[in-house]
Amino acid sequence: MALNRTIRYGMVGGGPSAFIGEVHRRAARLDGEMELTAGAFSSYPDKSRRMGRELHLAEDRVYGSYDEMAECEAALPDDERIDVVSIVTPNHLHFEVARTFIERGFHVVCDKPLTTTLEDAEALCRLVSERDVVFALTHSYAGYPMVKQARELVHEGELGEIRKVVAEYPQGWLATALEKAGDKQAAWRTDPERAGVSAAIGDIGSHAEHLARYVTGLNAEALFAETTSFVEGRALEDDATILVRYEGGARGLLYCSQVSVGEKNSLRLRVYGTKASLDWQQEAPNQLAVRYADAPDETHERGGAYLAGAAQANARLPVGHPEGFIEAFANVYRAVAADIAARSDDGGSTSELLDYPTVRDGALGVHFIHKAIESAEREKWVDVQYAPPFSG
Amino acid sequence: MALNRTIRYGMVGGGPSAFIGEVHRRAARLDGEMELTAGAFSSYPDKSRRMGRELHLAEDRVYGSYDEMAECEAALPDDERIDVVSIVTPNHLHFEVARTFIERGFHVVCDKPLTTTLEDAEALCRLVSERDVVFALTHSYAGYPMVKQARELVHEGELGEIRKVVAEYPQGWLATALEKAGDKQAAWRTDPERAGVSAAIGDIGSHAEHLARYVTGLNAEALFAETTSFVEGRALEDDATILVRYEGGARGLLYCSQVSVGEKNSLRLRVYGTKASLDWQQEAPNQLAVRYADAPDETHERGGAYLAGAAQANARLPVGHPEGFIEAFANVYRAVAADIAARSDDGGSTSELLDYPTVRDGALGVHFIHKAIESAEREKWVDVQYAPPFSG
Amino acid sequence: MALNRTIRYGMVGGGPSAFIGEVHRRAARLDGEMELTAGAFSSYPDKSRRMGRELHLAEDRVYGSYDEMAECEAALPDDERIDVVSIVTPNHLHFEVARTFIERGFHVVCDKPLTTTLEDAEALCRLVSERDVVFALTHSYAGYPMVKQARELVHEGELGEIRKVVAEYPQGWLATALEKAGDKQAAWRTDPERAGVSAAIGDIGSHAEHLARYVTGLNAEALFAETTSFVEGRALEDDATILVRYEGGARGLLYCSQVSVGEKNSLRLRVYGTKASLDWQQEAPNQLAVRYADAPDETHERGGAYLAGAAQANARLPVGHPEGFIEAFANVYRAVAADIAARSDDGGSTSELLDYPTVRDGALGVHFIHKAIESAEREKWVDVQYAPPFSG
Amino acid sequence: MALNRTIRYGMVGGGPSAFIGEVHRRAARLDGEMELTAGAFSSYPDKSRRMGRELHLAEDRVYGSYDEMAECEAALPDDERIDVVSIVTPNHLHFEVARTFIERGFHVVCDKPLTTTLEDAEALCRLVSERDVVFALTHSYAGYPMVKQARELVHEGELGEIRKVVAEYPQGWLATALEKAGDKQAAWRTDPERAGVSAAIGDIGSHAEHLARYVTGLNAEALFAETTSFVEGRALEDDATILVRYEGGARGLLYCSQVSVGEKNSLRLRVYGTKASLDWQQEAPNQLAVRYADAPDETHERGGAYLAGAAQANARLPVGHPEGFIEAFANVYRAVAADIAARSDDGGSTSELLDYPTVRDGALGVHFIHKAIESAEREKWVDVQYAPPFSG
Repeated sequence: MALNRTIRYGMVGGGPSAFIGEVHRRAARLDGEMELTAGAFSSYPDKSRRMGRELHLAEDRVYGSYDEMAECEAALPDDERIDVVSIVTPNHLHFEVARTFIERGFHVVCDKPLTTTLEDAEALCRLVSERDVVFALTHSYAGYPMVKQARELVHEGELGEIRKVVAEYPQGWLATALEKAGDKQAAWRTDPERAGVSAAIGDIGSHAEHLARYVTGLNAEALFAETTSFVEGRALEDDATILVRYEGGARGLLYCSQVSVGEKNSLRLRVYGTKASLDWQQEAPNQLAVRYADAPDETHERGGAYLAGAAQANARLPVGHPEGFIEAFANVYRAVAADIAARSDDGGSTSELLDYPTVRDGALGVHFIHKAIESAEREKWVDVQYAPPFSG
Repeated sequence: MALNRTIRYGMVGGGPSAFIGEVHRRAARLDGEMELTAGAFSSYPDKSRRMGRELHLAEDRVYGSYDEMAECEAALPDDERIDVVSIVTPNHLHFEVARTFIERGFHVVCDKPLTTTLEDAEALCRLVSERDVVFALTHSYAGYPMVKQARELVHEGELGEIRKVVAEYPQGWLATALEKAGDKQAAWRTDPERAGVSAAIGDIGSHAEHLARYVTGLNAEALFAETTSFVEGRALEDDATILVRYEGGARGLLYCSQVSVGEKNSLRLRVYGTKASLDWQQEAPNQLAVRYADAPDETHERGGAYLAGAAQANARLPVGHPEGFIEAFANVYRAVAADIAARSDDGGSTSELLDYPTVRDGALGVHFIHKAIESAEREKWVDVQYAPPFSG
Repeated sequence: MALNRTIRYGMVGGGPSAFIGEVHRRAARLDGEMELTAGAFSSYPDKSRRMGRELHLAEDRVYGSYDEMAECEAALPDDERIDVVSIVTPNHLHFEVARTFIERGFHVVCDKPLTTTLEDAEALCRLVSERDVVFALTHSYAGYPMVKQARELVHEGELGEIRKVVAEYPQGWLATALEKAGDKQAAWRTDPERAGVSAAIGDIGSHAEHLARYVTGLNAEALFAETTSFVEGRALEDDATILVRYEGGARGLLYCSQVSVGEKNSLRLRVYGTKASLDWQQEAPNQLAVRYADAPDETHERGGAYLAGAAQANARLPVGHPEGFIEAFANVYRAVAADIAARSDDGGSTSELLDYPTVRDGALGVHFIHKAIESAEREKWVDVQYAPPFSG
Repeated sequence: MALNRTIRYGMVGGGPSAFIGEVHRRAARLDGEMELTAGAFSSYPDKSRRMGRELHLAEDRVYGSYDEMAECEAALPDDERIDVVSIVTPNHLHFEVARTFIERGFHVVCDKPLTTTLEDAEALCRLVSERDVVFALTHSYAGYPMVKQARELVHEGELGEIRKVVAEYPQGWLATALEKAGDKQAAWRTDPERAGVSAAIGDIGSHAEHLARYVTGLNAEALFAETTSFVEGRALEDDATILVRYEGGARGLLYCSQVSVGEKNSLRLRVYGTKASLDWQQEAPNQLAVRYADAPDETHERGGAYLAGAAQANARLPVGHPEGFIEAFANVYRAVAADIAARSDDGGSTSELLDYPTVRDGALGVHFIHKAIESAEREKWVDVQYAPPFSG
């Protein structure tokens, strides 16, 4: 299943102080199928160059701005220019950067949430449809093998008809006003100019929403939300609870919080069906609890020979050798590399490895975020039925 | 701290097929401070007598009905008649039985929820106030030593200001229509005539509500609820999610479910403050997780010498020797026995052992249940500020 | 299955400062089938009387010594005198007390280890055989329902042929010289005069040995032991590791420690067979892990409808309502009560409820303890094949 | 802390069917500091070439044998030839390959156990001393951040004086004769010709031994071992238990098993001191339990700001984002890269990142393995004091 060549990628954002940029780079390195070839790592050209040197990039492939990068890379010969760009900037820049590269035919890997407005999200949907590029959104939690297993169990009917979905995502790191204490990660995430209409839901609730949708395949019909800003002076919510009514009668409960002191990164998904239920926790990602009405509880474990194909294809180590967040993240990159290679006849792949969150998922997420904020403001159930303008 | 005499109790309900009756009896036996002396175990006199024989009661203390029992026991000399009656019937009978015994001056232990209407609950509040009897409601989960520890930590300010409360109580046993399959426990719990206006909230949500209130001391101002009846033909809800706004700005999330296949009895309480958080799970009741922002997570354990007085006083075994549900339940009985003995000069006690849920808790619970049902019907936030007519 | 009458028991030992005496009493109370009727609670008559008053015993049934008690009780009419005596003294008194009561025809419940010498243990075996009394040794951990389940799984061949047994029992409470600080529990357990030839192995290793034998049914052929006294001035070992060779080729590893700081009461048993393995931990006693070579791990849970009959018969609560140490202990008492009642036509019982550790188990345990000490001294493998002189 | 250049490495072994070769490659890729430049992936030149192509290596850097590789690479200019060779062959080849490369001045990363004979191990010690090359042994488990934390806690005296060490490593994958079923991994590990004198101890017990020594710093004085071959026809042991007496009086228990059905890769280390104890489990590697005598249990977690410098320096992600086996493995490679760069003035590093297992650890491990086998054969305690001939 090896690719015939290494996929070349560039990065926009991901300078010295960024956390997520290095996560992307490690994820892209892990399998040896992608090579970082170009970058506009900062809007400060100096910082960008410094980062490029640290990463041992050729000097002429390090750019002072993303549009310079798009233009110059597009001008390079096919076998030199980057195949794909990774966008790891704060939210408000995703749209312009993505648009700029897609219009030149580059594939894209983009951080979530897709954009800060639904209009932009829909514009990207249309653009990706038109240009037929690979567009992956890094809902990286969906890359965990045991999330794939959960999805397969639901799809195979092992749980029966789904009745209830509980997705929770408490964190505690924003329990104080870090944004006023010089923390850059906190600063942009709590700033409406850069984060958009939502903080907690946009940053982490959107992961929970995607995870629930990815595993269950359920479409939301209506939601009711309550949002709170616990930390004084914060313009956006740092805590939210969302009730969901799904098509077919299932019910959902989704909550996220950035002020839950003591919680690290406790994304958890529970799905209850008429026959069985499942429970997956991101902080112990190699296990998946599966429980039946009248039988011993089961723990499915990454690496097990009994797992579904998608769970096996997305694992790299034998059972008992833990995989973590970077490996899950790398599964998005591996899928992107495989898809790009498949499109250029540089390597085949199986469908199990071509599974990654798309621009359509991004638009659904942005829509969900906006509807949650709207419901919280109106204190009412709101309709959330929605089909993004994407023909993928 | 031993009592000077054994407290005599009678039981109404708790016949052969009842689950909770035998739990009460075991709880009452455990410490050797109470003795079952009389009973009206069933509305069928034959069944009642059979149960009495099994329990080795004197024949003349086994009654065919609760009012016969109240009347006859009241006529006995002080040192023979029961001190207290345990009411372990379905919900709709609580009020009449309790009223009958209180009016004759008997103390009462009563299953939750207190009554099926708020009117009845308030009548009991007034009656208990007037007659100054001991009235304990068996929110037995509050009897666990580590719940006492949780309460103490909150009260001592160890968590800082409380921001968020998450109380969940999923069960799975009613995921199918057991009530149509001859299961008596299921039958009355899903029957509006016997259970009242609510099934899931009344049966288990009320425990979660009490637990949250007991530990945090927070008063609810408003709630929003969503209820669902998943199993076809069920008149009452078997799943509910309730959002709560507390006085002072804290937020609550409470959910309960009887159709969550694979869940056993997963009552769990998480409380998040500005400084720390705690997490208690009923199925591992001897531990309490306490987590701070920048320190290792802690596990407080029943039996530890570092625990608060109330947690120590309510434990019976050294650390590492698990206690369970019956011991927690017995803590309610022990507190009742201590209170009765203290009132009759038959033994002193410490305040730590005189802590049990009261008729006031019962009225607050019944009010909460009705407001949740109202909110779900109206799809609106409803005001829940309320003070029961109790002067205890 | 109720008994026709309450079984009357007396207690030797279990005065004010004793921990285990009150555990026995709570265990005996729990099911309402036994009644404490007499006692010689202390070798100090005053203390004994005080304890008797606290327990609301008739004054003339509280004795100043165990032999007085044996004599007087034996002189009472059949329907007044105790049926059975519970011996909860330090180890060195077990033999004389037991002998005294058995010779008068009383049934016995006795703390472990059975005796301090093998000679005494064998004498009791013969005496119990001759007098045909009920003799139960309180290896209470074998009373846990999930230990019964483990045993059933092994016996039904679910694990295949047993290859490996790992029984561990670390505690930390004797990590300092508590015995010099006035702790009575520590004092007698570390004193050769009262504890016998061994401290750690006698006190807790013997539980691990019994548990392993109870669950697997394997007979030991040879053992090799290493013992250590970590705390200065201690005459007996406070830490021991024992390797075992079983008949048929299985291997065992048993270790116990009283100086493992931070450990509470971590008795754990793992059994590995050719097809599957199991893992039970006393501090989470309601679960039993069962693992197969190529399948999801399973957790069997007390209260599950899929459990073996013996596991169900020894549980009192529905799944998800934790049971603990007292309930396990009470299963020994319930079995004793059932056996006594069955012998006197006062109630039938099922074989599942007649299962308790016997005098034969006691002799095997005493033999094991002595052989372990011998091996540690000689630094050699020693033969441990042994059949107690018991015809039960 | 970035290096000035990428470190070039070659690989011996790690062909298509090998598990560990790809682990090494992923570990080396993760941080972007090493580049795979050459390889002799198989003793079959065809297979080696195929692997080289899959890995996108230059054709002239893929060799048909390790000695050809050593010779040709040595002949290349300094800025082209590999800096270091990774040896990922079966055990019996480690010595010759390592010797060949060290003699030409190459640095080495080598799988464990170091060699199959102590003579060879000592020869390597001397050679590494003479040639002053970097030599890292991939006891990768010591690379986990929370193992670093454990070591720091011990070294800082947080546990007091160490009394007891329990290191266990059960696996179940060799519970049947996989080696006769065509499994290559099983075949060489159970073959005395390729594995050496030991299977279980060499393959996994040596990890446990190293881990215990790494964390505690204790030197073994004597050991007693019991080994078993459970699977019929196996020449080497597949299960072993080893008792250890350490300098200063501490005691150790080390066991490993390849036939413990249901166990995955359950390496676990517990260390008990006079003040506190710790417990680390490889399958949940981001946590470290720390327990004191009279305080709540603590869980230290990777990413926590309170951790020791070495634990922080060896982590890549914020708390709550799990790291796994590859990241731990990569810490060995990162340390090797840092050490090589430091020696060639291509980048500085901190001492916290220069910590990796060495050839000295390898000789100690080989000595331990042979002594354990000797003890098991003689059924006696054997002296294990030993100082490898290494001046590092």
